[in-house]
Amino acid sequence: MSFPGTFITFEGIDGSGKSTLARELSRRLRAKGHEVVLTREPGGSAGGEAIRELMLDGKRFGWATETEILLFHAARRDHVDKTIAPALKAGKTVVCDRFADSTRVYQGLGSPRLQETIAWLHREMIEIEPDLTFIIDVPPSIAVERARSRSKGDWRLEGLGKECMQKIVAAFADLAVTHADRCRLVDNSRATVEETVQEILEACLKVLNGRE
Amino acid sequence: MSFPGTFITFEGIDGSGKSTLARELSRRLRAKGHEVVLTREPGGSAGGEAIRELMLDGKRFGWATETEILLFHAARRDHVDKTIAPALKAGKTVVCDRFADSTRVYQGLGSPRLQETIAWLHREMIEIEPDLTFIIDVPPSIAVERARSRSKGDWRLEGLGKECMQKIVAAFADLAVTHADRCRLVDNSRATVEETVQEILEACLKVLNGRE
Repeated sequence: MSFPGTFITFEGIDGSGKSTLARELSRRLRAKGHEVVLTREPGGSAGGEAIRELMLDGKRFGWATETEILLFHAARRDHVDKTIAPALKAGKTVVCDRFADSTRVYQGLGSPRLQETIAWLHREMIEIEPDLTFIIDVPPSIAVERARSRSKGDWRLEGLGKECMQKIVAAFADLAVTHADRCRLVDNSRATVEETVQEILEACLKVLNGRE
Repeated sequence: MSFPGTFITFEGIDGSGKSTLARELSRRLRAKGHEVVLTREPGGSAGGEAIRELMLDGKRFGWATETEILLFHAARRDHVDKTIAPALKAGKTVVCDRFADSTRVYQGLGSPRLQETIAWLHREMIEIEPDLTFIIDVPPSIAVERARSRSKGDWRLEGLGKECMQKIVAAFADLAVTHADRCRLVDNSRATVEETVQEILEACLKVLNGRE
């Protein structure tokens, strides 16, 4: 599918700083006159947010990974139908905090069978891929500290050991290689976030200006 | 998958009388000493029921058929994991009011593409098929009257025209032919429900006794 708008996603582990960067990028693009829709996953539409609530209640329901995969795709389909595709059709820029790459990494990790299932579901039920994906890279030690210092309810970190975190960071970095056409690995362990924001903003403007 | 227990499902349009028959069958099997788990879809587990609530709120969320299909399979996977498979493994008889055939008929109706999607999802994410399926057959005119005379919230009937109802009845009847190994079409438009109950009970006992 090809739309007049531009679809930009942020991926990475919790505490990588991707949500802050997505917000900051949206703010600066708007300041330059771009129409931006800032959204997130799971969620981003009334139905998607309702499904998110169920998923955050994972301790109560004890979802199997397969069930999680189905719920993520249900939430994503609704999000695409109601929020992302209409904005892109209207020529807007959509900035999304997490998208399909998160499912590929978190739910697919270590299981070729589930990776195939996720690939099939994406092809059949979602279709759309981002024009540009920023994979925000930080060492797990920094991410854990950041994530712990803020609000609770961060279900991804719960129960994840350091070894598992390392594997997830590595899987995200792999995506930047296997999907080099749209993915950029961005180091966010630098002294100031301003350097990272500038790098991201420039990459975005290149894509946006190339499309105009 | 093969389990020591027996998996029996009831299918048909709302108002066909299938829920009453499922309850009545369970009661009589228990009276004969069988351990029976009576359950329903969507629902049948804590997670499945929570997903059911979201689906019943369809007017609020306006789910696309594709999203509904994903939600049904998420609910079903949880239901199988938490309720159906454990009971069958323990040698119990599971009687379920609606299962995969409902999704095949309602969500697949008229779309070969969606039928393929549903078939794929069932194979990959659910696997299990009933040992015996009763397809409860009544003319739509009777079903609509029955369904209207009882509780609200019957989302399937809302907005379904008579022509569509006829197509759904025909699609259920087709299943009895294409899945003749496990499906039995049961006429429930007779004067008394007792005749129908007897027919169902006998068919069940044949299967149960054949397995013992």
